[in-house]
Amino acid sequence: MTSYLIGIDGGGTSCRAAVAGPDGHILGRGKSGAANILSDPETALQNIADAARAAFEDASLDPAGMASARAIVGVAGHNVGDAVHYVKRRLPFAAADIESDGLIALQGALGDRDGAVAILGTGTIYIARQGEAVSYIGGWGFAIGDHGSGARIGHALLQESLLAYDRIHEASPVTDSVLSEFNDDPRDVVDFARLAKPGEFGRYAPRVFDHAGRGDPVATRLLKAAAATVDEALDVVVSRGSRTICLLGGLAPLYRPWLAERHQPLFVEAEADALTGAVALAAARFGTGPEAVL
Amino acid sequence: MTSYLIGIDGGGTSCRAAVAGPDGHILGRGKSGAANILSDPETALQNIADAARAAFEDASLDPAGMASARAIVGVAGHNVGDAVHYVKRRLPFAAADIESDGLIALQGALGDRDGAVAILGTGTIYIARQGEAVSYIGGWGFAIGDHGSGARIGHALLQESLLAYDRIHEASPVTDSVLSEFNDDPRDVVDFARLAKPGEFGRYAPRVFDHAGRGDPVATRLLKAAAATVDEALDVVVSRGSRTICLLGGLAPLYRPWLAERHQPLFVEAEADALTGAVALAAARFGTGPEAVL
Repeated sequence: MTSYLIGIDGGGTSCRAAVAGPDGHILGRGKSGAANILSDPETALQNIADAARAAFEDASLDPAGMASARAIVGVAGHNVGDAVHYVKRRLPFAAADIESDGLIALQGALGDRDGAVAILGTGTIYIARQGEAVSYIGGWGFAIGDHGSGARIGHALLQESLLAYDRIHEASPVTDSVLSEFNDDPRDVVDFARLAKPGEFGRYAPRVFDHAGRGDPVATRLLKAAAATVDEALDVVVSRGSRTICLLGGLAPLYRPWLAERHQPLFVEAEADALTGAVALAAARFGTGPEAVL
Repeated sequence: MTSYLIGIDGGGTSCRAAVAGPDGHILGRGKSGAANILSDPETALQNIADAARAAFEDASLDPAGMASARAIVGVAGHNVGDAVHYVKRRLPFAAADIESDGLIALQGALGDRDGAVAILGTGTIYIARQGEAVSYIGGWGFAIGDHGSGARIGHALLQESLLAYDRIHEASPVTDSVLSEFNDDPRDVVDFARLAKPGEFGRYAPRVFDHAGRGDPVATRLLKAAAATVDEALDVVVSRGSRTICLLGGLAPLYRPWLAERHQPLFVEAEADALTGAVALAAARFGTGPEAVL
């Protein structure tokens, strides 16, 4: 019986899976619901199995083949601790390793090259790889980190709208737009902010990019401050030896023109997505194709 | 029967009361537990009554006199809304007005003079008075405001300790002290920060002042940034006409030397505390002394 390879990209909103032959060639893909192995491991296990089954069906393969398959499961966060062991023992595959979503994204983006990825979305994290050494920079979450993230940019915009209301900072079209959305009542902004999750703050980030692009002075100031936090993290990535950097995440295309000149020559486009990266790691670690020989 | 005046200073940890004769001369003081009229109005009502009763007993007066007394009740926040009406109707006094804790603090600090108070504690808020006009600046809470507050300074210190861990920013004795307290494990800092209340962040603020006083470069940078937020709020206070500013709150004495030269000539010491301010407001509004004529 053929021993298939499986790549899983598990995230907070959905879980994607790909099944590949022993050489790493992808045969089918599937998708299911959220896979948060930290906050809800049982649901994550169910959705990982469902996504894998859908991938087998997409490839017109018997899902019973899952039981003899070998998998790389990419999950959110780079500090997954005990939950890894719990989930790893219960996965419906013959063998599996759990890796961070950042590492599979890096593998997808850069293939086997050395370099780094900067994931610029609702959160921010930087992952650099030199040979076998992988290092993580940032990514500590909204409460105390994730500088330059969509959540932080949106939070900064709401904050500026209150500073503009109090005439402590200048008002501008972007702060006016926020206040007007909240009925020109700062208490409504406060009520929203007290309960807002990072993703809810993050929904204001594109508005900052949009207004900054049209010369709004407040949006420009907020965005320059955010871009400076990304640039200083990229300086660390470069100081650790990376000469190739791929910007990933929903804000990546918006951010690129705002980042420092010194980093522009280092930026490359992603070769492939994180799911492809997970399959490639599975092929290298478990496969019988040429990569497995390495 | 004498109609006494009552001043109440109700806060999140305790409620203090003073009873005065119709001329506003304080005869006795009392204290009880928390009086959060927004989050727990029933307990607040109980503690307001208990503190007032204790003040009557302290003055060797029959607490039955409360029922014919007139009171100013100072409570936290400057946007108390519906809870004001609920509590006001149920207070055990003949008449009462509910005011913000900031206004009674201002009355205590400045008496009847025009001017402003800057309350620099776990949170920050600025209150300016010119004649009958009272304006509030800032004070929107930790989630989206309270710039320069103890909570924000402490949060900034924890954040810097992670930036130092990642080598994005420089390390220094103050960031080393934080990391060492958290077992040199950034995940422990994150776990703390995700659940910490403003007061828990605020407990790190004195450490920043302490290290800055000894020349620590990171503490100095954080404190200059925090002081700049206070100075820009004071600029608004000054632009609205205040030429007398009293710094109040636990961080006031620590902050003063860090604030801008342009503000130093405006600073005055408080004449009296917030409770005395509440009694003075009660005397002016309800009393038969000379102030009531105004």
